[in-house]
Amino acid sequence: MLVTFVGGDDGPWHIERNEPVRGEGLSPASRLRVFEGTAPPVGGRWALRGVTSNERYVTAVEQMELGRRSPGLGRTGATMAALIPIRKSDAWWMLPQDERRAIFEDRSHHIATGLRYLPAVARRLHHGRDLDELFDFLTWFEFAPSDSSGFEELVAMQRETEEWSFVEREVDLRLVRSD
Amino acid sequence: MLVTFVGGDDGPWHIERNEPVRGEGLSPASRLRVFEGTAPPVGGRWALRGVTSNERYVTAVEQMELGRRSPGLGRTGATMAALIPIRKSDAWWMLPQDERRAIFEDRSHHIATGLRYLPAVARRLHHGRDLDELFDFLTWFEFAPSDSSGFEELVAMQRETEEWSFVEREVDLRLVRSD
Repeated sequence: MLVTFVGGDDGPWHIERNEPVRGEGLSPASRLRVFEGTAPPVGGRWALRGVTSNERYVTAVEQMELGRRSPGLGRTGATMAALIPIRKSDAWWMLPQDERRAIFEDRSHHIATGLRYLPAVARRLHHGRDLDELFDFLTWFEFAPSDSSGFEELVAMQRETEEWSFVEREVDLRLVRSD
Repeated sequence: MLVTFVGGDDGPWHIERNEPVRGEGLSPASRLRVFEGTAPPVGGRWALRGVTSNERYVTAVEQMELGRRSPGLGRTGATMAALIPIRKSDAWWMLPQDERRAIFEDRSHHIATGLRYLPAVARRLHHGRDLDELFDFLTWFEFAPSDSSGFEELVAMQRETEEWSFVEREVDLRLVRSD
């Protein structure tokens, strides 16, 4: 499913923070709307596109555990969100699958760390690289205000990993739902 | 890199065979032109799109061996080609990475079999699934007429594998270069 995140003057999500973490940031925008499947109308300050796709790294055991613990998007109390677009380096993409898996999970514990914050922090990953987008990944997170410090921990831990040394562009957007 | 294969009345490749192997075939066309990067002009009977992308299954050892033995496209003597578009089932795409790898290589020997026909049969894989194309993969092969029986062996072997039991649509196009 193609998902388009459009930043502009309208949409149910108020953008509270829009900061470059590495490399170039995104133009300021006050609100965000998420289009699932359908193409968005022309307009907005920027539009980021990605597709939900098959898993690239998980094992059968991890897939079962993730499936068991992952909540859906749109929970009533989950009024806070984050959108974290990243691009990884060519060096990452040239690595064979087994070396990417070793960095991703054996040494950076990407899945294990995410599991610790489930079901509190819901998450959906969108792939943009094969669409020739500026960002390889758009990760969307939703959580309740009471879980926001847990979310900060999760993000901080990920940025310290070996995996993150391959990130060459990253933007951090934080949002609050206000329909 | 986005690659578009356009079947119609012109192009350097003469289409000698265009057969459905599983599911629906492709409309008849006499010639094929391959557009690399640039968007093709409007026209043609059909257009199949895919992107060259990162490896999904190879290990470091396999990557090295493939790199050492794989020839580039466009060799002078390689006047024969095949284009094999396939789509795999939802059941395949729902599998975790480790199970797909086990079927793909440990049990179906996809990489090991391909290696046996290198450098005779040059190959480039294009991914269409994240582009919402009708085919998940477009594989393009080039070889000399003297290697065509080897190529038939390779294709026949692949179609007997467990991996191929997940293929729900496949077309087999054979081409000869005649600029």
